[in-house]
Amino acid sequence: MSDDLNLHCPLPLRDHPAVQMAHGGGGRMMRQLIESLFLPAFSTPPSAFRLPPSFPNALAVGSRLNELLSPLPSPLSPASPPHDSAILEIGGQKLAFTTDTFVVSPLFFPGGDIGKLAVFGTVNDLAMAGAKPLYLSAGFVLEEGLPMDVLQRIVASMAAAAAECGVKIVTGDTKVVDRGKGDGIFINTAGVGLVPEGIEILPRRVAPGDAILVSGDLGRHGMAVMSVREGLGFEGDIQSDCANLAGLVESLLDLGVNLHCLRDLTRGGLAAALNEIALDMNLGMELDEWKIPVTEPVVAACEILGLDPLYVANEGRLVAFVAAEVADEALAIMAEHPTAVGPAIVGRVAKEPAGTVVLTNPFGGGRIVDLLSGEQLPRIC
Amino acid sequence: MSDDLNLHCPLPLRDHPAVQMAHGGGGRMMRQLIESLFLPAFSTPPSAFRLPPSFPNALAVGSRLNELLSPLPSPLSPASPPHDSAILEIGGQKLAFTTDTFVVSPLFFPGGDIGKLAVFGTVNDLAMAGAKPLYLSAGFVLEEGLPMDVLQRIVASMAAAAAECGVKIVTGDTKVVDRGKGDGIFINTAGVGLVPEGIEILPRRVAPGDAILVSGDLGRHGMAVMSVREGLGFEGDIQSDCANLAGLVESLLDLGVNLHCLRDLTRGGLAAALNEIALDMNLGMELDEWKIPVTEPVVAACEILGLDPLYVANEGRLVAFVAAEVADEALAIMAEHPTAVGPAIVGRVAKEPAGTVVLTNPFGGGRIVDLLSGEQLPRIC
Repeated sequence: MSDDLNLHCPLPLRDHPAVQMAHGGGGRMMRQLIESLFLPAFSTPPSAFRLPPSFPNALAVGSRLNELLSPLPSPLSPASPPHDSAILEIGGQKLAFTTDTFVVSPLFFPGGDIGKLAVFGTVNDLAMAGAKPLYLSAGFVLEEGLPMDVLQRIVASMAAAAAECGVKIVTGDTKVVDRGKGDGIFINTAGVGLVPEGIEILPRRVAPGDAILVSGDLGRHGMAVMSVREGLGFEGDIQSDCANLAGLVESLLDLGVNLHCLRDLTRGGLAAALNEIALDMNLGMELDEWKIPVTEPVVAACEILGLDPLYVANEGRLVAFVAAEVADEALAIMAEHPTAVGPAIVGRVAKEPAGTVVLTNPFGGGRIVDLLSGEQLPRIC
Repeated sequence: MSDDLNLHCPLPLRDHPAVQMAHGGGGRMMRQLIESLFLPAFSTPPSAFRLPPSFPNALAVGSRLNELLSPLPSPLSPASPPHDSAILEIGGQKLAFTTDTFVVSPLFFPGGDIGKLAVFGTVNDLAMAGAKPLYLSAGFVLEEGLPMDVLQRIVASMAAAAAECGVKIVTGDTKVVDRGKGDGIFINTAGVGLVPEGIEILPRRVAPGDAILVSGDLGRHGMAVMSVREGLGFEGDIQSDCANLAGLVESLLDLGVNLHCLRDLTRGGLAAALNEIALDMNLGMELDEWKIPVTEPVVAACEILGLDPLYVANEGRLVAFVAAEVADEALAIMAEHPTAVGPAIVGRVAKEPAGTVVLTNPFGGGRIVDLLSGEQLPRIC
């Protein structure tokens, strides 16, 4: 993968003496920060760490590149690429474990708030591994002076979201930083879920010929946040798509759909999710532009701001990879589920061009959908 | 517990329209914030949450009051008071799950740094439940402009600390906030550990007559951080006690010591840890002032700053509650362990005065060691 990296990350870390916003943007610079800094540090072989003999073998399958874990050789999945959750084997159980910190600004936006995001975001990462989300932790960094009623609204929103997902917030921590050293409230949630026997939803199962499905229209979350942040009065008052995706995944699995891989379309949107898997698996992705669902208000808002909906963050949308022959069945099941709003088959996986996402238009023309260096919209989640 | 709360928390939340530093200080105001805001929100009975029938019974034993979980009625432990980690039963396994966010300022101090703290702190919370720490998550909030070499040093320190503890950092997340909206770096770590069969280290097992042991001298971490923050050149250059306590707990358990309860002595120090358990279990605690180990440089530094070592945060010290008859054996085992530096039996648990910690001096005089409203030293971890 290091060749891909050099190819796709022209700017080595040494050219960035300081952290930039783009390092958190879910694009190429974040991928590069993780590849050049976090992975080498945290994936050094245990032997090099002088671990005690009692140290259990690492059975982690891996977590997504914008999370930290490197592909670890593992009985569960030899040299698997990163994924949304780490898959751990503890006492014969397959558990999914993931974390996410939420720094969205503003704290409240049409269709959601930071508390709802903090619960759904981590529940969704567990669901992308096919896990049944069970328990969450909550770590708060509060800025001195945060109005207590704001905190109360956010906590109530977290509780309601947890109830909707059927998860419990079982442990947490509260820190307060001086005025001017934070931004109201940051929330970290980590989550633990149980992966049912026989479920293997992993990037390495993505294969040429697979159909690419999205669970609904794209770009609403990003545009909803922008509408408040920039004080733009978008026509149609765009609501965030912020939602719990665990139920949708459960329905697909219950009805026997063989899901090869899932990704929720957060930072960097559909473009980032497809590029990550294309790069990690060295596959091509073909998207049919006219099949990608985007609502009129989002198209209009993106035009105003000069943004591409393919790169805009969603908080309640996923991309699913399934064998072509079951694509229609999967689409039909999605269409029945309330969380999937206008799902569609938007493309297919190919051998070539390896590591590349190509968008074709109705007239047969095509363009490469590349990984951006950063996020078009910072602090969107 | 609500009576105790009214008794011990004279300031209801409505008197605090905004978050104050003391709300994160590990004292009475944090206890009160959690009791009046977080617990009611997150401990509502599942029924009230309209959970799906598939939702597994909550088997969480509870997490510490400066963490979030309220005492949940549970097959594992009926109405148990909060503890350092939540204990979960997943597929027949007893797992410990905990989280902590680190906002220490400055990032580097004699004997440690924020990265080392972030790993040891969460590993220690797992160890306080008797769990074998296995896996950590890491959530970073980076401030735009953080020098890359600072980040590299911190990440290397986390990797080394994880190796020392025999845990793996398996998943993570990176967010970047605008310059002036953070403070260099905040790190959240959540941890998962396995609780061996038959281990039950819980506040509700603390009983009158139990001996109170501390694993070493108190106050070094807090004073080490202060020495840098305030630019004070304390004689003796105080080093933080920041350490991994899991090995010490494992030694005690391996040698068959029946540990009733453990607490690491972080925010609020020994005074806060004892007061929490005294309040939660409605017991009295008697401390013998002359037996409490504090080094000369720490005594001197505390005198300069007008601080009481009993309230100063430690990051590598624990208090253990054991039956009086095994106290000497436990002390001997501690004395053999490198992490326990000058361990001592410092007092005993009594029935009366309930919910109170009393410090007696060599001349037989006594004073109440109360829970402070906040932390004497903000942002110490």
